[in-house]
Amino acid sequence: MRNKQVIFRDFVAKGAFPKESDMEVTESTIELTSALAEGSRGVLVKNLYLSCDPYMRGRMRKLTDPAESYIPSFQPGSPVTGLGVARVLESGHPNFKKGDLVWGPTGWEEYSLLPAPETCFKIEHTDVPLSYYTGLLGMPGLTAYAGFIELCSPKKGETVFISAASGAVGQLVGQLAKLFGCYVVGSAGSKEKVDLLKNKLGFDEAFNYKEESNLDAALKRYFPEGIDIYFENVGGKTLDAVLLNMKLHGRIAVCGMISQYNLEQPESVHNLMQLIKKRVRMEGFNVIDYYHLYPKFLEMVLPPTKEGRIVYIEDTVEGLESGPAALVRLFSGHNVGKQVVLVARE
Amino acid sequence: MRNKQVIFRDFVAKGAFPKESDMEVTESTIELTSALAEGSRGVLVKNLYLSCDPYMRGRMRKLTDPAESYIPSFQPGSPVTGLGVARVLESGHPNFKKGDLVWGPTGWEEYSLLPAPETCFKIEHTDVPLSYYTGLLGMPGLTAYAGFIELCSPKKGETVFISAASGAVGQLVGQLAKLFGCYVVGSAGSKEKVDLLKNKLGFDEAFNYKEESNLDAALKRYFPEGIDIYFENVGGKTLDAVLLNMKLHGRIAVCGMISQYNLEQPESVHNLMQLIKKRVRMEGFNVIDYYHLYPKFLEMVLPPTKEGRIVYIEDTVEGLESGPAALVRLFSGHNVGKQVVLVARE
Repeated sequence: MRNKQVIFRDFVAKGAFPKESDMEVTESTIELTSALAEGSRGVLVKNLYLSCDPYMRGRMRKLTDPAESYIPSFQPGSPVTGLGVARVLESGHPNFKKGDLVWGPTGWEEYSLLPAPETCFKIEHTDVPLSYYTGLLGMPGLTAYAGFIELCSPKKGETVFISAASGAVGQLVGQLAKLFGCYVVGSAGSKEKVDLLKNKLGFDEAFNYKEESNLDAALKRYFPEGIDIYFENVGGKTLDAVLLNMKLHGRIAVCGMISQYNLEQPESVHNLMQLIKKRVRMEGFNVIDYYHLYPKFLEMVLPPTKEGRIVYIEDTVEGLESGPAALVRLFSGHNVGKQVVLVARE
Repeated sequence: MRNKQVIFRDFVAKGAFPKESDMEVTESTIELTSALAEGSRGVLVKNLYLSCDPYMRGRMRKLTDPAESYIPSFQPGSPVTGLGVARVLESGHPNFKKGDLVWGPTGWEEYSLLPAPETCFKIEHTDVPLSYYTGLLGMPGLTAYAGFIELCSPKKGETVFISAASGAVGQLVGQLAKLFGCYVVGSAGSKEKVDLLKNKLGFDEAFNYKEESNLDAALKRYFPEGIDIYFENVGGKTLDAVLLNMKLHGRIAVCGMISQYNLEQPESVHNLMQLIKKRVRMEGFNVIDYYHLYPKFLEMVLPPTKEGRIVYIEDTVEGLESGPAALVRLFSGHNVGKQVVLVARE
C-alpha cells in the first residue's frame, strides 16, 4: 500500500532554527500484513493525528554521545517520529485488536508498523475530540498535571505564573490552577494569545512578553505580593525575572526552556541567590517519570473537559504535507495553541 | 561593669569586601542587675564564644526595603550581633537560671542583656567542647543536617559533592555522607584544606578549586558517573560546572553562595537546562525553618561526636579585639574550619 512519509533529511546544527527543508515529504509503500508476520507482536496502524512538540528539537541534534540525551535522535533518511493518535488496522499483540484507537509513539507517515505497541495507550473515551489525545488528554496534558499538581502541590489562593501559557501544556496548567482556586497569570508572545488566555482560557491576567521592556516590572505589576508557583516553559530572561519575584517557599516546575533550544550558548541567569533568600524549590521534570499517573490524571481532567469547564485550543494543519511547516512554526511561536497535524479523518 | 564591644561602624557597599575597619572595638558599661528589672523577662549573659558566619555579610548591607532580607541589618554605632555561647549571670526568665549555658543570638561584647532569651537553646551536654555550639552542634551543624538529610534524602552508595567543604557546614555534611555510606568529594581553596578533608575529615577525595582551570573536567575526574547530591555553598562557576555533572534525579541543596556575596553583579549560570535533562531538584533553604528538628539532629550527631567518629576543625582567635579580623577572614577564605572568637574562658 502507498505510504506518504515525512522524512528527516539531516541533523540541524546547534544554534540553528529547524527549517521546513530539514524534512521532505516522499512516498513509500508498506505491507499491510507485516504486523501479523510469524512471531511479531507488532501492530499496523493508520495515523490520524500527529503531535508537534518542543522536545522534538532535541531529536534533530547530532549527538556525539548517545548518553547526552534521554531520547535518540531522528535518523536521517527515515521518517520523523513522534506522538500521535492512530487506528489499529492489524494486530499481532494480544492487548490490541483491529479497530482499537491508540495514542503513543508513531511515525510521521500515513501508516506505521509499531513493533512494540505496549508503549501506546488504548483510547477508551471517544466522546471528546480524538485530537485531544495529542494534547489535553495526552502527553502535554499529563505534563501539566505532573508539573503543577505533583511537583508544586498548589493550594487555594496561591499565585501562579505560567510562561508560554497558551501552549499545549500551559493552557491546561492555567485551567487546573483556576480549578484549584489560584490566581493565575500567563505570558505569551502575541496579542491574539493574550486575548485567548484572558477570554477563553479563564486566566486572571495575561501579558505579551514581547511588549514588556522590563519583565521584572511586569511581574511586579501582576504579582505585587510575589509568585508562589512558576510553571517554567521558556527559560532565559523570563526565568531570571521570575526569580526576583518568587515568594517565600515558592516552587518552580521546570518543564521546558523553549527560548533556549535554538541558541548556540544558553542565556545566562543571574538571580539564583533568590533560591536561598526565598527558600525556593526549583525542579526539572520529565513526563516519562509520570506515565503511571495517567489514569489518575484522566480522572481529574476528563470530567471537566466533557462538561466544558476545561477547554483546549488547537492549531491544526491538514495533511502530512503541512507537517514540516507546522513543526517549524512551534519554534517561531506562530502556532496558537496545541500544534496538531491532521493526517486522516478516516 | 566594664563591657568591651565590637561596634559596627557603617554599612558596607554592595560589591565590596568587608574590612576590619568597618568595625571597631570600644568600651562601654553594662548594669549587672538590669536583667532583673521590674517585669523584665531578659537575661544577662557573659559571652564565651562568638560565631563568624557567612550570612553576616548580608547584615552589613544597607537595605532600602526591609523586606529585602529575612534578617535586619546591623545598626551602625551598635555592637555587631550574631550567634554565640554564653553563661547566664542573671535571669528574669522562668526557663533560664543563673549558671545556665546557652547558645543563640547574642552581641559581640563581653556581656549582653538578652531581652528575649527564649530564642536561645539551653546547652544540656557539656562533655564536648563548648565552642562546638557555635558550629558542629549549633546553627551550622543543624544547617548541614537540614540540607543534607531533610532535603536530599541520601542513600547508601550515592555520590556527594560539597563545595567550601572544610567550612563550618561542609565538614559535617561530608562526615554525615560517609556515615550514610556515600562516596564524598569536597572542594576547598588551599592545599591545607584539601589535606584536612582527605586526612582528617574522611572525605574520599578533595581538590583545590583554585588549581583547576576546568572545573567541569575536575568533576568528571572525580565523578565519572555523575553526582547524586550537591551541597551548594559557593554558587557561580562551581554551580555551573556541577549542573553539567548531575546524575538523573540528582538533588542540589542550596545552602549558600559565598562566592557571590561580595560581587556587585552575581556571576551568571548557563547550564540550568540540565535541570530538565537530568530531572534535578534544586532547593534553597534556611536553617530557620528547621530549628524544631534540633533535638533530632543532636540525637544523630552527638553520639558519634563523643565517640570521635565525627570530628570538627575550628579556627579560633582569642579576644574580642580579634573579632573583626576573624569575621573578615571568612570572605577571603583564610579561615581553616569553623571561625570562632573566644571571648572568655570563664
